[in-house]
Amino acid sequence: MDLLQRTVEAIGPLDTQAMEKAKERLDNLLKPRGSLGRLEDIAVQLAGITGTAGRQISKKAIIVMCSDNGVTEEGISSFSSEVSTLVTETILKGISGVSVLSRHAGAGLLVVDIGLGGDIYDSRIIHRKIRRGTSNIAKGPAMTREEAVRAIETGIEITCTAIDEGADLLGTGEIGIGNTTTSSAVLRVFTGAGFDEVVGRGAGLSDDGLRHKKDVIRRAVMLNRPDPGDPIDVLSRVGGFDLAGLAGCYLAAAARRVPIVVDGFISGAAAVAAVKIHPETRSFMFSSHTSAEPGTSAISRALDLYPMLALDMRLGEGTGCALAFHIIEAAVKIMNEMGTFKDIGM
Amino acid sequence: MDLLQRTVEAIGPLDTQAMEKAKERLDNLLKPRGSLGRLEDIAVQLAGITGTAGRQISKKAIIVMCSDNGVTEEGISSFSSEVSTLVTETILKGISGVSVLSRHAGAGLLVVDIGLGGDIYDSRIIHRKIRRGTSNIAKGPAMTREEAVRAIETGIEITCTAIDEGADLLGTGEIGIGNTTTSSAVLRVFTGAGFDEVVGRGAGLSDDGLRHKKDVIRRAVMLNRPDPGDPIDVLSRVGGFDLAGLAGCYLAAAARRVPIVVDGFISGAAAVAAVKIHPETRSFMFSSHTSAEPGTSAISRALDLYPMLALDMRLGEGTGCALAFHIIEAAVKIMNEMGTFKDIGM
Repeated sequence: MDLLQRTVEAIGPLDTQAMEKAKERLDNLLKPRGSLGRLEDIAVQLAGITGTAGRQISKKAIIVMCSDNGVTEEGISSFSSEVSTLVTETILKGISGVSVLSRHAGAGLLVVDIGLGGDIYDSRIIHRKIRRGTSNIAKGPAMTREEAVRAIETGIEITCTAIDEGADLLGTGEIGIGNTTTSSAVLRVFTGAGFDEVVGRGAGLSDDGLRHKKDVIRRAVMLNRPDPGDPIDVLSRVGGFDLAGLAGCYLAAAARRVPIVVDGFISGAAAVAAVKIHPETRSFMFSSHTSAEPGTSAISRALDLYPMLALDMRLGEGTGCALAFHIIEAAVKIMNEMGTFKDIGM
Repeated sequence: MDLLQRTVEAIGPLDTQAMEKAKERLDNLLKPRGSLGRLEDIAVQLAGITGTAGRQISKKAIIVMCSDNGVTEEGISSFSSEVSTLVTETILKGISGVSVLSRHAGAGLLVVDIGLGGDIYDSRIIHRKIRRGTSNIAKGPAMTREEAVRAIETGIEITCTAIDEGADLLGTGEIGIGNTTTSSAVLRVFTGAGFDEVVGRGAGLSDDGLRHKKDVIRRAVMLNRPDPGDPIDVLSRVGGFDLAGLAGCYLAAAARRVPIVVDGFISGAAAVAAVKIHPETRSFMFSSHTSAEPGTSAISRALDLYPMLALDMRLGEGTGCALAFHIIEAAVKIMNEMGTFKDIGM
């Protein structure tokens, strides 16, 4: 609890002076004012985060939280829970979606076993297993409050280590069969949005499957009665180790003033939890893509954070981060490399 | 006319066999079917264009058509027409928006003077000046039919040379004060969309300026009576050298079966013209970003082509292409580097 508390206490607002400087520079660049649209907004936000207009990005990393969810017992996914461990192994082997795209973006990958059902013997895995999957939220709380805090602090620790090793642009991803179910439950509690609005087909449910999934989530929320005013209670009762771990990543990035990319539905639900823990966390986030899951619009509204990419992706893993990194880097280069009207004597 | 005719005759449909192969491969990759969304669509379209699933991209180039428009006499822009030549020089100097972003994307730049009012003495310019700016469309046709054909054929020639020199992914951009006015006129004629729907603020007009711009476009269309069934007539009466040149680029890319990126409003209007000349041209296009100009939705509808990026950019120059290239390359890598279920014994 100590690490979590210290992290939250270290979170402060954006540096408005650096943002003003960035805006001024952007307005003098060789273009109509504001014509680079959201690239300019990104550049200004980065200045507010880092305290410097146009700070170079030197090392990118995507943190992937992998875990299992007891609620898969209820048959809410088209895949069985063994697939989580299997897919995590493919990431480490370099042949999954996020492996390919992080290579394309020149970003490192930090793959964390925070609660997988199976064991991974690949030396590149980061072992932080809290337990072999959460308990079934349709029958009781996912985890104890102590476990939730440990999962959040795991995210904080991994993120701080990445930053200590030089990462200055972070992304987030996850693996975990059943985690669109827990994410929908968490979102339902935090935003009050209807079940139709926050529950989607995940990896590809049928109409019947979708109806059943909604029933299970409704039951889980009614049974566990999470307190919307207590984010750690919500994460422990209807969340997952991956969600709690990711929430820790966002808190740590904010405390250390490093930009971090929220990628789609599950990491978006975790981002909402982090913002409930400390509202200023929001200022350090970027959103990569609109997921095909319907709940992403509830997330965008809750965070007032809008995606850069319109690619209808729904693979998870952090695949959208890799593409967003290229855009964020473009925003930095615009700031640093474009000429000004003064340069050409205007 | 000979080059234009031969080019149009060389345009054929996508290779559906290669597309089937690509789909089959994508469906076997380690992910739920279709979960990479539009990245998968891009990969399939690329297979149809090149005839090979997962053909590597080795050389990228953005063609920037630069010219002036006589209609600036009517005061429809917040910038004077000398700015076109000035901005073209900044591209060549490497300090404009597209210079920075094309470097970021590792793409070459082909900057063409197809009708600038001023002269460029930088050796990197490609000299193809048809005339020092078009005539004022509020008073008569922009150019003769012969000039329109010459401009289209200039685009064809530049594109074929780029392809001969190895370019296998093309982008398009433009410079030309007044070219949102000509683009709106062209779109109005081709799509029949209302003036409110196709006319926007360009580089930053006031409410009065916008009203005046609409009046000028209405007058130009009524006076010149372009024939919507004859695309070359439309381009010559209310278009510009840049628009006609870009239309040539799209036709040549289709004829040579090389993917080409349409970037925002002006190049979108040119793309509509190219598709009116030969409908199959559409199959070889990708759309980068939604411009802040309202007319982009008329373009999306006319081409049934939807942007990948939601960045509210409105700088032009081809700035969005550079960002789209990274996504298109990602689609190729997904196809080539992701593992299959078979690879992991499933």
